[in-house]
Amino acid sequence: MEKLKRNERIAAIMKILGDQPNKIFTLNYFTEMFTAAKSTISEDIVVVKQAMEKMNLGKIQTISGAAGGVKYIPLTTKAQNRKILQETVQYLSKPERILPGGFLYMADIIYSPTIMHQLAAVFASQFDYKEVDYIITVETKGIPLAMMVAKAMNLPLVILRRDSKVTEGSTVSINYVSGSSGKIQKMSLSRRAIPPNSRVIIIDDFMKAGGTARGMMDMMKEFDTQVEDIGVLIATKEPDTKLVKDYIPLLILDEENLKEGIIHIQPNPNLI
Amino acid sequence: MEKLKRNERIAAIMKILGDQPNKIFTLNYFTEMFTAAKSTISEDIVVVKQAMEKMNLGKIQTISGAAGGVKYIPLTTKAQNRKILQETVQYLSKPERILPGGFLYMADIIYSPTIMHQLAAVFASQFDYKEVDYIITVETKGIPLAMMVAKAMNLPLVILRRDSKVTEGSTVSINYVSGSSGKIQKMSLSRRAIPPNSRVIIIDDFMKAGGTARGMMDMMKEFDTQVEDIGVLIATKEPDTKLVKDYIPLLILDEENLKEGIIHIQPNPNLI
Repeated sequence: MEKLKRNERIAAIMKILGDQPNKIFTLNYFTEMFTAAKSTISEDIVVVKQAMEKMNLGKIQTISGAAGGVKYIPLTTKAQNRKILQETVQYLSKPERILPGGFLYMADIIYSPTIMHQLAAVFASQFDYKEVDYIITVETKGIPLAMMVAKAMNLPLVILRRDSKVTEGSTVSINYVSGSSGKIQKMSLSRRAIPPNSRVIIIDDFMKAGGTARGMMDMMKEFDTQVEDIGVLIATKEPDTKLVKDYIPLLILDEENLKEGIIHIQPNPNLI
Repeated sequence: MEKLKRNERIAAIMKILGDQPNKIFTLNYFTEMFTAAKSTISEDIVVVKQAMEKMNLGKIQTISGAAGGVKYIPLTTKAQNRKILQETVQYLSKPERILPGGFLYMADIIYSPTIMHQLAAVFASQFDYKEVDYIITVETKGIPLAMMVAKAMNLPLVILRRDSKVTEGSTVSINYVSGSSGKIQKMSLSRRAIPPNSRVIIIDDFMKAGGTARGMMDMMKEFDTQVEDIGVLIATKEPDTKLVKDYIPLLILDEENLKEGIIHIQPNPNLI
């Protein structure tokens, strides 16, 4: 292999670290890749670190010791959150999104890889996930966001299903009451999906009364698993008291005037 | 803002391009960001380009003209495909994955952000998606892979649902016959999800007889939409003749001896 110049090595190191946030790469990994000395790679990493800091593009962390190395951590500033969230609000506020019955059409937004990638970085900057083992969501609409959050945090994703499937082996199922509709719903999860004493963060697209999030928390109890945090893309303003206490919404939707064609949606003021 | 050194600028440019594959960034975007001359930024981009080429980390493309700029394109070599696919085979080949009834437990793999991110780069290297408008999948298990493919190609993702939902507005529904079980199934999609004369790529996790893929193709006809390609994570060896003709599997599973506890799975030989 042709030997790389310092400039080129820096570009390659940045690409590799940025591609897999929160994954630790040893210095040896890079010294072998570039047939370069450890001191040379260390100097390269200092440059990458300074670039990320100066441009507010995230953080490079070096970990010393036997399990040491270097990793990239996504991190957004409040100004960046404001920009990302206000852009999302703009997309969502178009009057043609209002559906019969006073619902808001959001599928294109919540399935957008680019937007969900950016919102995931906002979540990764809010939560302390150092001790967290899994990201949890329930099918279907929360999956794209949860996937991107899991990618940003370098955590495995677990998807709760509405029905148990033959491809999941033995499952645990629970019934829960949807807080907004009052209907009894079911969710199900493979027994092998989460080992006991795990810690998880719940991610979902939408929260009204909080029944689904409550159901997910109940399910986690069945797995002897601790829910550390809950993040939702959109929480409704009403009901003010939801079935879960601590959760972080990115956006807050006031549904009151939706049927009259007025979309009131705004970023969570604590994030911007 | 503190002015960046060349080295640091290169790291920052690489981060920004790598974060949003296939998105064109104008030179002006970078000249303003760094308060640097166009010629300076052009030289930086040459360095980034050479680093990606030398390390086989993908391709930097410069586009001239009014809509011009620079973008990063994920691209894997056959040797990289072999490594990624064989690693995935190893994960899937553990005997404890065999479930009662001769099914293979795969949820942890197909929901893994890291593995799906790598497999998405393999797909992005196989398909010509220059003229493609959407990535299509059907809930649930194909979504994580489809999301990562959509991210790699910078395309919006469309998810077909099993049932129509109030939050999707008016929908088109079709019934189709699952090729392997013979059961009649339903899929549904919001009328506003895809405009007529679009071009799409279908991504799914698993193909046995091809009934679901056939159903998705039939659905696309209802939207006057052209299916350009079909990609699946795993296709079964039998039946040899499937209900769709052209598709690219990453892995091929021989189910014959699964009930006896023997997992035969291998990479698609055309990709490695």
